[in-house]
Amino acid sequence: MAKAREISRRQFVASAVSTAALTSLPVRRLFADVAHGAAENGALPPPNAAETDGPNWKDPDWKNQGIENLNKSPHAKLRDIPVRAVTIQSGFWAQRREINVTKSIPTMHDLLEANGRMNNFRRLVGKSQAAQSGPVFSDSDVYKWTEGAGFALQSGDRPDLRAMVDEVVAVQEPGGYLNTYYQDDRKSQRMLTQTQTTGHELYNIGHMLQGAIAYYRATGDRKLLDAGIRFVNDFLMPSYGPAPKQPIVSGHPEIELGLIELYRITGDKRQLDLAGYILGGDERLHLPEHRTIYMYSGTPFTARTKLEGHAVRAMYACCGAADYYLETGDPTYWKTLNALWNDMTTTKMYVTGGVGSRSDGEAFGNAYELPNDRAYGESCAAIGNMMWNWRMLAATGDAKFTDVIERALYNGINSGMSLDGTLYCYRNPLAFDPSTGEKIRNPWYDVTCCPPNLERTFASLPGYFYSTSSDGNYPWDGTMEVTVTPAQPSNFTFYLRIPGWADRAQVAVNGKAMTGAKPGEYLPIRRQWSPGDVIRLQMEMPVQVLQANPQVADDAGRVAVQRGPLVYCLEELDQPEGVAMSDLAVDLGQKPQAQFQSEHKRDLLGGVVVLRHTGVAFDRSASRNALYSRYSGQQVQSRRVPLTFIPYYAWSNRQETSMQVWTPVLNT
Amino acid sequence: MAKAREISRRQFVASAVSTAALTSLPVRRLFADVAHGAAENGALPPPNAAETDGPNWKDPDWKNQGIENLNKSPHAKLRDIPVRAVTIQSGFWAQRREINVTKSIPTMHDLLEANGRMNNFRRLVGKSQAAQSGPVFSDSDVYKWTEGAGFALQSGDRPDLRAMVDEVVAVQEPGGYLNTYYQDDRKSQRMLTQTQTTGHELYNIGHMLQGAIAYYRATGDRKLLDAGIRFVNDFLMPSYGPAPKQPIVSGHPEIELGLIELYRITGDKRQLDLAGYILGGDERLHLPEHRTIYMYSGTPFTARTKLEGHAVRAMYACCGAADYYLETGDPTYWKTLNALWNDMTTTKMYVTGGVGSRSDGEAFGNAYELPNDRAYGESCAAIGNMMWNWRMLAATGDAKFTDVIERALYNGINSGMSLDGTLYCYRNPLAFDPSTGEKIRNPWYDVTCCPPNLERTFASLPGYFYSTSSDGNYPWDGTMEVTVTPAQPSNFTFYLRIPGWADRAQVAVNGKAMTGAKPGEYLPIRRQWSPGDVIRLQMEMPVQVLQANPQVADDAGRVAVQRGPLVYCLEELDQPEGVAMSDLAVDLGQKPQAQFQSEHKRDLLGGVVVLRHTGVAFDRSASRNALYSRYSGQQVQSRRVPLTFIPYYAWSNRQETSMQVWTPVLNT
Repeated sequence: MAKAREISRRQFVASAVSTAALTSLPVRRLFADVAHGAAENGALPPPNAAETDGPNWKDPDWKNQGIENLNKSPHAKLRDIPVRAVTIQSGFWAQRREINVTKSIPTMHDLLEANGRMNNFRRLVGKSQAAQSGPVFSDSDVYKWTEGAGFALQSGDRPDLRAMVDEVVAVQEPGGYLNTYYQDDRKSQRMLTQTQTTGHELYNIGHMLQGAIAYYRATGDRKLLDAGIRFVNDFLMPSYGPAPKQPIVSGHPEIELGLIELYRITGDKRQLDLAGYILGGDERLHLPEHRTIYMYSGTPFTARTKLEGHAVRAMYACCGAADYYLETGDPTYWKTLNALWNDMTTTKMYVTGGVGSRSDGEAFGNAYELPNDRAYGESCAAIGNMMWNWRMLAATGDAKFTDVIERALYNGINSGMSLDGTLYCYRNPLAFDPSTGEKIRNPWYDVTCCPPNLERTFASLPGYFYSTSSDGNYPWDGTMEVTVTPAQPSNFTFYLRIPGWADRAQVAVNGKAMTGAKPGEYLPIRRQWSPGDVIRLQMEMPVQVLQANPQVADDAGRVAVQRGPLVYCLEELDQPEGVAMSDLAVDLGQKPQAQFQSEHKRDLLGGVVVLRHTGVAFDRSASRNALYSRYSGQQVQSRRVPLTFIPYYAWSNRQETSMQVWTPVLNT
Repeated sequence: MAKAREISRRQFVASAVSTAALTSLPVRRLFADVAHGAAENGALPPPNAAETDGPNWKDPDWKNQGIENLNKSPHAKLRDIPVRAVTIQSGFWAQRREINVTKSIPTMHDLLEANGRMNNFRRLVGKSQAAQSGPVFSDSDVYKWTEGAGFALQSGDRPDLRAMVDEVVAVQEPGGYLNTYYQDDRKSQRMLTQTQTTGHELYNIGHMLQGAIAYYRATGDRKLLDAGIRFVNDFLMPSYGPAPKQPIVSGHPEIELGLIELYRITGDKRQLDLAGYILGGDERLHLPEHRTIYMYSGTPFTARTKLEGHAVRAMYACCGAADYYLETGDPTYWKTLNALWNDMTTTKMYVTGGVGSRSDGEAFGNAYELPNDRAYGESCAAIGNMMWNWRMLAATGDAKFTDVIERALYNGINSGMSLDGTLYCYRNPLAFDPSTGEKIRNPWYDVTCCPPNLERTFASLPGYFYSTSSDGNYPWDGTMEVTVTPAQPSNFTFYLRIPGWADRAQVAVNGKAMTGAKPGEYLPIRRQWSPGDVIRLQMEMPVQVLQANPQVADDAGRVAVQRGPLVYCLEELDQPEGVAMSDLAVDLGQKPQAQFQSEHKRDLLGGVVVLRHTGVAFDRSASRNALYSRYSGQQVQSRRVPLTFIPYYAWSNRQETSMQVWTPVLNT
């Protein structure tokens, strides 16, 4: 792990731009805050716990911490940059983020109020007479919203947030315990084994810590952060942990992430160790196997060999384990994380980056179990997938993780929020039939985990986008420019990401062509960089036709269409009238990639590039009513029809209609 | 409904043979018991309650009652015959039934003992100190076993059964209540609304009634039957029902069937009315919609428009509703039953006759939601499907219902029990990959509803097989003979079933050809019948290649193979070595039906006809590891391989291997 330690602060600036091409949006100020450390060399040691454990200690660096603060993580090859260091001014994600801040976050605030989630807190200080409202994890929805608003604050401001934080902190008990559900008659259930496995007490606190940290990094205000520290240091740590303390289990992994990020602020190694203890499982609880599979916790993380059980839990557990690796470099964790990543990306991930194919248990299915219409693909699980890959990228600098981040973000996460920012998908199917009566986009769910999760993700995006180009139109166009802006001219290696989907990529610095760009890798450009140097990346963006592994029965004889990072789909309303989705096939002839036509439609779905191709509509009127009939071979009548594809993320934003990502294919 | 009333007892004998071709097995005595009534004319009136309600009353006709006693049901066009009237001597079902009686029923008896299910009963009379064992519906497993043994007794004898019945009856409370779960601390939960929706008290009693009736019809012993009557008449009826009585709901439909069959014995119309009340739902309980969908009860049955919710519950509800129609002729029930039947057979039934595609909630899926490897297809649901269609057939004499009975029995039910009779499927998938680690056949389940359900079904089969041929080898061969044996020469119409799958059918009586035989219909043969008259039915039994409705995404580009009533499948171990199931396709060329070779393999799987056809194995080694890759069109290397198909019911009786019913198809 010595290699990671050699990465200098100067290289940090270099690697900070290493996910270029995740977006292409104009940058207002890049490196303004981070470049100040560019002259330093060598990783900083973690802060000393003794220095930081006081209640009034304030990290002077609080403004310079990213989504995760990896500045001092010894096993991170990449350091992230603050959310505030990047401002997304216009274009694809600016549009989505603008809606998030102006529509999603405010309306969710009102819905959390209207559904009694804030009154849960007020009730405990006598400011509300309403009964407890919502499921056991309802506190986390408030915290996730706080985190989303916190990230928004890091880029701007939200004065109403402070009042909400005050209300949350006010109900904390003197011993540090904080939970609005296990009150009154339910007090006796606190921290029982049964409650730990299903009651989400620690899950809620994990989200509280993440919300508190985002808020702290936005405002420097430690109020909520200190409440989290009190829960961890005063309530949890004295009584729970390895023998002779009482055993605990992470019924829904999340506390691990919170504890490690807290450690990154406080330097209190006991918090990291507690996360490690939780990730190791505690045999004293004698949890049944089906439960440890479902929870993806309770047994040693390093003994896992495959992804299974509840998908969000599994993804969050992987995030926590990756965080633990970033701090400890434990090679058994690294081995497990890679085995699980291979399991997921070669057998269990949708082409949209969504994961968790089963609604039963909201779970990972077996290898190659990837149904389309019944896909669960919970928005939260896709977000967890992105968060995990973000940590794997930080550990390695390997662009294969960025490809997964991009796939999930542009498709399986992006689909989770309507274009107007007020409706959310809980599940993200890859095929849909409105005659089932299912309503796929809703403003509120009783289990409303996904909406604020999407909000915090969109609000945090600048922290993921290490660099942006000045004039591109990504993801619609494959040309982008990156302006490098070090505080002063200096020698370092700039790692430029070439997306895995890029057919050909040409790179030029200040107009001079560079060689060696390979899709799916980072191109290292080592030179003396001066303010204003421009990297130009040009990629062909042909339509790609994808097939699934033949072991994916649900995609047999079908293809998916992708252009740049965007996966496309068919919506029935865009196809010739009277043609049913189930009668369609795309006819690729003998040259699969060549015949798509793309057109930028400014007024459609907020502005998208649509794709067109010739297809076939089978005349199946004869077999329409029979469930099973004699095989008719190739005698089915058909006629040629034009097919129109739209980006998957934008589906179900007009009237209800059938949709599918994987379309039957012909080669006539 | 006047038409049904016109059916004479003589016609009863005629219609009693109307499901000919359901089997083809030699008959020892057919009509020996039933023919005694052949001279009577006109349907008998139902017995008068006053005549029969005494505790010592014994129906003199107890030996002459079939699986259901439809002798006096005014809206039954067909009357069934006693189980004892048909003896299956050799051949396909004799073999299965022999195993059932010699292996399945005895080993299940021992397992019920070993798992404490009988001790549940003994505990209440101080004969066991063991704690209550098993889930809330555990009593029903004992009752279902009793019913199976009862049917076996109707054909033979089982002396150990009487002791078991004694133990069950002994624990009945003076007020008529009988349940081993709601005892001690749980007494206070009896008949609470929550208990009614999930506690299976009435479900258990429904199965108790069915078991008691089968036992009564075997032995004339009323002991268990009277216990059932006491529960219904003394406990249930005085306190529960329409206002001002307390409301009840059938949390898992089954009591309806028991009540109506009980009415068919006692003639006590209050029992029929109580079933009608339950089928109508009771608004006073204010059950949430998701619950009434899942339970398929609690709202008016006649307001249902589609099959949904828990599949076994829905099938049993349909059975109860059909029974109610058979007794009342209520046209709204008939309309609903037909709408539901159409919904099932055109959108929600597997080609194996299995139903309930979702493991989540063990539920019906949406229309055309018929996944293969993840098919739930619970054995109990296929049995419910058969039972329902049996009742629809009784109401109409329409052979389309017999086709469904046959499809379910030979395939989706038949697959539920291993060839050796000791292992059972809970779910019956149409594709299977052993690398998932799932064990599909097991001797015991904690929820062990399916095994004794299969046992009672196999034991009752003679009651379903109105006639048998004397020398056929059905289902392997399409020729069979039916010997008609009226007690004396008489004029009546013999309805001969021509299976829906039959390509061509030729019928001869005593060697003289008859015209008019149409597949999927009953051929009426009206003449004077004398003992020894022989009907000969000859059907071509070509291999049929089936396609699914194009709206079934999971079967797109695939075909299933059927021969006679048997659906076939591929098991990987029968295919050329080294060829993976996911690489196979069957190549039907341009003449889909012509190229299969069939071979009777006496030593394979208890003796089966295997089918062979040319197929193709794709060389997918290059794409083996990638989950998504560029579409390779038709450039995949392939080689021709011979494919071997076995009957689906016999799958998973050798070593673990991959299996699939729906195979990709080519026409090269």
